[in-house]
Amino acid sequence: MTNRRFILRRRPVGDPVPEDFELVSEPIPDVPAGGLVVRNHYCSLDPAQRGWMDDAPSYMPPIPLGEPVRATTVGEVYASDNPDFPVGSWVMNLSGIEEYSAVELGHFTAPIDIGMVDSPSKFLSAMGAVGLTAYFGMLEVAKPKAGETLCVSGAAGAVGSVVGQIGKIHGCRVIGIAGGAEKCRRLIEDYGFDVAIDYRGKSREDLVEEIAKAAPDGLDMVFENVGGDILEAEVHNLAKKARIVLCGLISEYNSVEKHGLQNLWQLIVHQASIHGFLIMDYADRFPEGGAQIAQWIAEGKVRIDEDVQEGIENTYDAFMRLFSGKNTGKLVLKIA
Amino acid sequence: MTNRRFILRRRPVGDPVPEDFELVSEPIPDVPAGGLVVRNHYCSLDPAQRGWMDDAPSYMPPIPLGEPVRATTVGEVYASDNPDFPVGSWVMNLSGIEEYSAVELGHFTAPIDIGMVDSPSKFLSAMGAVGLTAYFGMLEVAKPKAGETLCVSGAAGAVGSVVGQIGKIHGCRVIGIAGGAEKCRRLIEDYGFDVAIDYRGKSREDLVEEIAKAAPDGLDMVFENVGGDILEAEVHNLAKKARIVLCGLISEYNSVEKHGLQNLWQLIVHQASIHGFLIMDYADRFPEGGAQIAQWIAEGKVRIDEDVQEGIENTYDAFMRLFSGKNTGKLVLKIA
Repeated sequence: MTNRRFILRRRPVGDPVPEDFELVSEPIPDVPAGGLVVRNHYCSLDPAQRGWMDDAPSYMPPIPLGEPVRATTVGEVYASDNPDFPVGSWVMNLSGIEEYSAVELGHFTAPIDIGMVDSPSKFLSAMGAVGLTAYFGMLEVAKPKAGETLCVSGAAGAVGSVVGQIGKIHGCRVIGIAGGAEKCRRLIEDYGFDVAIDYRGKSREDLVEEIAKAAPDGLDMVFENVGGDILEAEVHNLAKKARIVLCGLISEYNSVEKHGLQNLWQLIVHQASIHGFLIMDYADRFPEGGAQIAQWIAEGKVRIDEDVQEGIENTYDAFMRLFSGKNTGKLVLKIA
Repeated sequence: MTNRRFILRRRPVGDPVPEDFELVSEPIPDVPAGGLVVRNHYCSLDPAQRGWMDDAPSYMPPIPLGEPVRATTVGEVYASDNPDFPVGSWVMNLSGIEEYSAVELGHFTAPIDIGMVDSPSKFLSAMGAVGLTAYFGMLEVAKPKAGETLCVSGAAGAVGSVVGQIGKIHGCRVIGIAGGAEKCRRLIEDYGFDVAIDYRGKSREDLVEEIAKAAPDGLDMVFENVGGDILEAEVHNLAKKARIVLCGLISEYNSVEKHGLQNLWQLIVHQASIHGFLIMDYADRFPEGGAQIAQWIAEGKVRIDEDVQEGIENTYDAFMRLFSGKNTGKLVLKIA
């Protein structure tokens, strides 16, 4: 029996290419003292992983070369030297894209009750970082008030679609920006957004105009997942005291030259603010956020879709769906 | 008797040139019904005026071509059709760079008591926007805590020097960035900063290193007056939850291409925030802010210097001192 592992061989420059990675087969690891070996069933594929591949200062150390690509995983305890985590129980983990992970217990291993959900993958979407990111980003940073206007970029993505739905729950007018007619259709029909803007083939000036048409009184909140021209166009359309939640910048992760935000002056004009946001900050309140999201799902007020890709041998192609805009909903890789 | 007026003839492209303006002589205006004619004695010269010269969306309409350059002024009532403002009383105004202004009373005309100060110009510096900008920007946006580290750009400028002194009053370590050895000397000796960094002749990378040396645990607060490479270097050195008060971007006002901020990602890494800031927002609390600044000055805790230039015929040269970095302290033009 072997353990297939998706290894980072070299640091990508710009777009990752298949040669940056290697799928290797190794023996199943031994159980660390006091720890576990976990059979990973699902792993999360996220834009943040692209950042972890770079050797740049960030909120986590870079993924070491020769190690598997870091990922949030859910799996079953396969071997255990810890009575709190018996063999056959399920855990959520920050480990790697591999079939079996040797886990030394620490901050990022949590038991999960898969009886609560129709698929363990839900712990990577609805019950995981996706729902929590949207919940705390909206409630604690954007602080929506009824009647305000919210613009979400990457709106058909996992986090974006939940952000928009939370905006609607709070009585906001919600504008989503996404790529392609099908994603825009889903924003309106599946997620209840008020306006969908297709950014494909549009210049920054086109986007400025489309947002202005959709929000004549300006944007009170921006939930930013993309950056680049989309962020510039939003910042050209701010209302007074607008709050911009800076959650992600997927348009930049594969670029060597960072675009950033040229139009800082508009922040002064509108007394607007940008807030860099990581959910880690709210770790002690995850149970509260998870319970609220679960309740909204149960009430039919929030819908979270998953895009489940299969097979560790398909990791590279699955991961690149994030950057080609192919994924619809939370991208998850089924390993076993 | 004539009224000399410093007129905006055309909108500057990049650096203003003398031909963008014209000094004209016109008759002293008539008193508007219910209003005043004010003999202007001093006017404020500020980076913000450069922005008002552009035909770009901002927090105020552009200065109309053919009209005097808009400025905050202090002067004496020369003719009055309003019993609340008798001839010979003094007022502060948002009017224009001209010897006499016809004033229709509204939001921006306030009586002042020049007996309180050694020179009426103090209402354009210590008792005016300079002190209030520093006070509300620090107290309401940066929110200093004892032991935190503050970095101020444009530190030897009017606002910057007061910001640093307010940081010291609150028990912070204060780093100032300024241009040239003499300004850096003043930061330490006159204003009590802990560290002065001379940005002249230094690359972005040099500045990143110098700030890192001065603030090994990162910057908790940045008070930004400059932008460009200085802002980038600060953003490379943020502490967790850093607050950036975006007060001005003087490095950009004369550039056609805006630099902005490339390194947005660091905001996410450090969960930092940028706050566009205008004091207008705090207009109802100006008496509180003015009183506090006056008390700090009386107690010797805050020192506010003025750079008084003389003669309306020298307006262009005086104004350009802001951009050449020549002014030391609040730049004021003495008109009469």
